[in-house]
Amino acid sequence: MKAIKKYVDDHKDRFLEELFDLIRIPSVSSLSEAKEDMIRTADHIKQSLLSAGADHAEVKETSGWPVVYGYKMIDESLPTVLVYGHYDVQPVEPLDLWDSPPFEPEVRDGKIFARGADDDKGQLFMHVKAFELMNATETLSCNVKFMIEGEEEIGSPSLKQFCKENKELLKADIILISDTTMIAQDIPSITVGLRGLSYLEVEVTGPNRDLHSGLYGGAVGNPANLLASMIASLTDENNHITIPGFYDDVQEVSDAERKEMAKAPFSLKEYKKALDLDQVVGESGFSTNERTGIRPSLDVNGIWSGYTGEGAKTVLPSKAYAKISMRLVPNQDSKKIDELFIKHMKDIAPEGTTVEVKSLHGGQGYVTPIDFPAYRAASRAIEESFGKTPIPVRSGGSIPIVSDFEEVLGIKSILLGFGLDSDAIHSPNENYPLFNFYKGIETIPLFYKYFVEEMK
Amino acid sequence: MKAIKKYVDDHKDRFLEELFDLIRIPSVSSLSEAKEDMIRTADHIKQSLLSAGADHAEVKETSGWPVVYGYKMIDESLPTVLVYGHYDVQPVEPLDLWDSPPFEPEVRDGKIFARGADDDKGQLFMHVKAFELMNATETLSCNVKFMIEGEEEIGSPSLKQFCKENKELLKADIILISDTTMIAQDIPSITVGLRGLSYLEVEVTGPNRDLHSGLYGGAVGNPANLLASMIASLTDENNHITIPGFYDDVQEVSDAERKEMAKAPFSLKEYKKALDLDQVVGESGFSTNERTGIRPSLDVNGIWSGYTGEGAKTVLPSKAYAKISMRLVPNQDSKKIDELFIKHMKDIAPEGTTVEVKSLHGGQGYVTPIDFPAYRAASRAIEESFGKTPIPVRSGGSIPIVSDFEEVLGIKSILLGFGLDSDAIHSPNENYPLFNFYKGIETIPLFYKYFVEEMK
Repeated sequence: MKAIKKYVDDHKDRFLEELFDLIRIPSVSSLSEAKEDMIRTADHIKQSLLSAGADHAEVKETSGWPVVYGYKMIDESLPTVLVYGHYDVQPVEPLDLWDSPPFEPEVRDGKIFARGADDDKGQLFMHVKAFELMNATETLSCNVKFMIEGEEEIGSPSLKQFCKENKELLKADIILISDTTMIAQDIPSITVGLRGLSYLEVEVTGPNRDLHSGLYGGAVGNPANLLASMIASLTDENNHITIPGFYDDVQEVSDAERKEMAKAPFSLKEYKKALDLDQVVGESGFSTNERTGIRPSLDVNGIWSGYTGEGAKTVLPSKAYAKISMRLVPNQDSKKIDELFIKHMKDIAPEGTTVEVKSLHGGQGYVTPIDFPAYRAASRAIEESFGKTPIPVRSGGSIPIVSDFEEVLGIKSILLGFGLDSDAIHSPNENYPLFNFYKGIETIPLFYKYFVEEMK
Repeated sequence: MKAIKKYVDDHKDRFLEELFDLIRIPSVSSLSEAKEDMIRTADHIKQSLLSAGADHAEVKETSGWPVVYGYKMIDESLPTVLVYGHYDVQPVEPLDLWDSPPFEPEVRDGKIFARGADDDKGQLFMHVKAFELMNATETLSCNVKFMIEGEEEIGSPSLKQFCKENKELLKADIILISDTTMIAQDIPSITVGLRGLSYLEVEVTGPNRDLHSGLYGGAVGNPANLLASMIASLTDENNHITIPGFYDDVQEVSDAERKEMAKAPFSLKEYKKALDLDQVVGESGFSTNERTGIRPSLDVNGIWSGYTGEGAKTVLPSKAYAKISMRLVPNQDSKKIDELFIKHMKDIAPEGTTVEVKSLHGGQGYVTPIDFPAYRAASRAIEESFGKTPIPVRSGGSIPIVSDFEEVLGIKSILLGFGLDSDAIHSPNENYPLFNFYKGIETIPLFYKYFVEEMK
């Protein structure tokens, strides 16, 4: 641990500068015009892996954005860790809410502010630097592979196929991922559950053109009003989702488990204060942590129709759109939920409209076992670096590809995340504390060490 | 009539070219950056009036966009007609739905296509050319004044004050306005009722920043979902508006009057076909024409929240917005309805949100008497130029300033409109048939002639 700390201390400014270089390339995967930057980012990662000591690294084509693959094999008989991460980031809108430009990283109050500072460039780069550290200090105790994709934020549409085509190259004993959070800097935790995702776009069409709302208002169904009614009807007064069959496959969690989970430190007062909310809103009969941890949810992620500019335009719009996503719990099937949603939206299409729904992305939920070598290794590593035993928690987020890994590659994943809820990922002013960045680099080599021990 | 027809025929190409010059200046009053173009348009109108034979014309400052004022006084003892129109136009978005650029007018299929082709540059310019005609043919039989404003499409915020400050200048016996429609080219009609308007913007705030919809979804009220619920609750299953007190001042129309109105030619089949609708939607118990003519309505004119770009962004938005307007019938007070709406939206603000509402614009409804000189003059003029007696109809649209004119100036208005419902005003591909443009120029001098007779 001392040697690790010394290496990190000696190189901390360089580590930060290198991370900044990576962040400065705006790799927003949802924008088709980002092509050049996406490829530049992938190349940059490849070079970082080679500089850090990889035997081999390459940018591999897929049907979408490329995957960076690399490895260092020290001994076939030793365990192999496959590090997964993603170099793409979320869009930055609304831009006017950022206090500093999203792709010009800067440190304020001990935190790195930038799009990707945490999700996932910051967390991914900890692995590159921990890998460099183990090579430089000759402490690498097992084989390492890297698979860094560029499509996580758009639902990893190419990665499952990539895994199918590269099963041999990707052979490993565990997939190690840092793309999640811990409870607090002094309350380390390990994410053992992830929610699945169904993300769809709804298009409601009324009249064949925008109409004058005076001449037609009251006589023609308004798709914006009607879409609002459709959305309103998707949840009932208890905030249960009303789509028929939606809850059919939800795994109910036992009272004993719920009691265990309730022990995780949590202050609803602090939670509300951090969000400036008087009141939280969610499914009746469940606590805030349960609502994101063990229950599915439904959110409008975007809605638009009619005139949204300055001033008043008296238009009765022809079309109204919404992006709606559902977070799913383990055992709910994302494809089946897509189908139920699409059918339901068409069933409730109001008179005088046509409704089209398309699936934008999705994936299954995941639960990590606590009683297996990788979890024990992660727990021991955190205990040594943070001085506290981590708490297993279920996160509300989704990394849809995790369940695909298990299905296609037959490899389980361990979610060794160092983010915080306050990192504002996907939001303006995304940030990542320097403490977490450096603590991550220190913790990862310990994971390797204990993983080899646990696998013996 | 022969002399009129000859003058129009002799000058029809020039009339059209001059209208095109007016249309080419993009005078979108809702855009603050349009300043230069708004002033250019006002100057252009002033010059047109002088060229057409006005004694005097000037661009008069207001607290907003200027008003063009001009006159020709031939004899103090004769009646005076005050022509009102507006030189501003609606925004042009969505631009991609236009078949030709909105400010580059062109004639296709006998129609002028451009923003403002009908509303109101085309209709207003008929008055300028009719005025030229009467001067050139020495047939002007009364005094004429012009008041052409630049803020009609944003609710005429300065015009009421302008009227208060210029009562003397604006003294007249009737206000003549062409900013409405007739049923069809072979079914002339005169608008005798206008709806009032309350147009407001609603802002719903949930958490203090955009959140990750996985980490928070299900545990925090989503302002986009909640705004949808609020909007949905504004109408019930019979499409009655649920705002308490909303219908209190609605003048019920007698069964006899409804029977009379039902005689106006109307084909629901054609109406639906023109809009590509299987089904019309509106208040139970009323016909389509009644729903826009004698009943108030509520429409979402715009709604926006969260991510509306390409692809999927898993955001739980901090804010959601809607522009919502209500069309009001005579006797409903726009300011009172604003207050009822604001109070109601705050009353139904869901837990976990704050709701702000601001009024963007509004105005009172209006009913024109049928039994007075201006109506009789308009009816006779149309009968002569179209060969058919016009039908009195109530329009769903609003010209809020009309009731202000009566209140401030004590002058009634006559709505001698030549537009068609198919002119797509406020929409992409706004158009105005050449037939209507020239027929309007022919009809207006007849109105002057018969108005002087009726006033004797």
